[in-house]
Amino acid sequence: MIEELEKVVRFMLEVEKLKGVLRKSRPLHQSRYENSAEHSWQVALLAQSLAPYAAEPVDAGRVTRMLLIHDVVEIDTGDTIIYSDHHDNYEKEREAALRIFGMLPETISAEYLGMWEEFEARKTPDAKFARAMDRLMPVLQNLHNQGQTWVENGIAIDQVLQKNEIIAAAHPRIWEWVRTCLEDAVQRGWLKADRNNSV
Amino acid sequence: MIEELEKVVRFMLEVEKLKGVLRKSRPLHQSRYENSAEHSWQVALLAQSLAPYAAEPVDAGRVTRMLLIHDVVEIDTGDTIIYSDHHDNYEKEREAALRIFGMLPETISAEYLGMWEEFEARKTPDAKFARAMDRLMPVLQNLHNQGQTWVENGIAIDQVLQKNEIIAAAHPRIWEWVRTCLEDAVQRGWLKADRNNSV
Repeated sequence: MIEELEKVVRFMLEVEKLKGVLRKSRPLHQSRYENSAEHSWQVALLAQSLAPYAAEPVDAGRVTRMLLIHDVVEIDTGDTIIYSDHHDNYEKEREAALRIFGMLPETISAEYLGMWEEFEARKTPDAKFARAMDRLMPVLQNLHNQGQTWVENGIAIDQVLQKNEIIAAAHPRIWEWVRTCLEDAVQRGWLKADRNNSV
Repeated sequence: MIEELEKVVRFMLEVEKLKGVLRKSRPLHQSRYENSAEHSWQVALLAQSLAPYAAEPVDAGRVTRMLLIHDVVEIDTGDTIIYSDHHDNYEKEREAALRIFGMLPETISAEYLGMWEEFEARKTPDAKFARAMDRLMPVLQNLHNQGQTWVENGIAIDQVLQKNEIIAAAHPRIWEWVRTCLEDAVQRGWLKADRNNSV
């Protein structure tokens, strides 16, 4: 037992680094950027709050647990904005997952790696819902923060629609609502109407 | 559905404030203090990593979900160090829980309030384990950060033993291990040997 505990402790000290991985969003009413640890808390909380309304039934506990570990790989790879060409780097991320989850006792290590792969594969209802929540949260933040990351990174509505369509697969009604909000964001000047017309 | 979604969104924007509630611990290798949002992520992750080793069987998903909401009340009450006389203020915290969880659709609101009360009452195996994890994490951080909060707040070993005995109830073996580490921390000068001998 103590050997397992010591492995978990080493893992926890390693993932503490996630508190230093900065994202592109700033928390509401704060000038600093948020880190991936507090983001993980927030999407997991969003997920458990919306789970009863998921289009396909999901296991709230499992989705929550999946979201708490989904960004741990960023300790090695860093956070990239979803609109970047470098956003998806499965091979590098998998290497990080093997290294970091590999610090844990075998049973938990295998469980986390399995949940991480499931999240990446986006096929099960739990994974599809978890991914949708991971995309929905920054959209909600931007909609209430004058489009902060969109403005800072010169994002156009078609990019947001394309990259976040994952929400539609998990929840058509939420997606419909998001689309309306995005059109409104264009009117307010928080999102570009056309990517080609960008500065 | 959209009405429920909008309630969840308002709740999420409210609890975003937890990213601005500062605790007494500094993340390893960082000079700033950690906030209660990233702490909530960390204890939930610790809990799901140690759940298989709990003395009494616990539901990892439920413990994780409980820990994600346990500190939300601090938006109204702030964080107080557990060694302070003002640490436990159930009435004020309950008022905060009613206000904040009350923003959610009724079913989730009732579920969160129930989980929060269960955590406070520390009677069920899930709650006892969750509380133990909430206490264990800062001890682990201090043991690997030269006793940072203990040194900054002039804490003695008997205070740590007394306030963290909750860990013993949930996990006697971990508690035994913690006790040995604390005695070592006194030797290193990270903890006072005697409270009455304090500066």
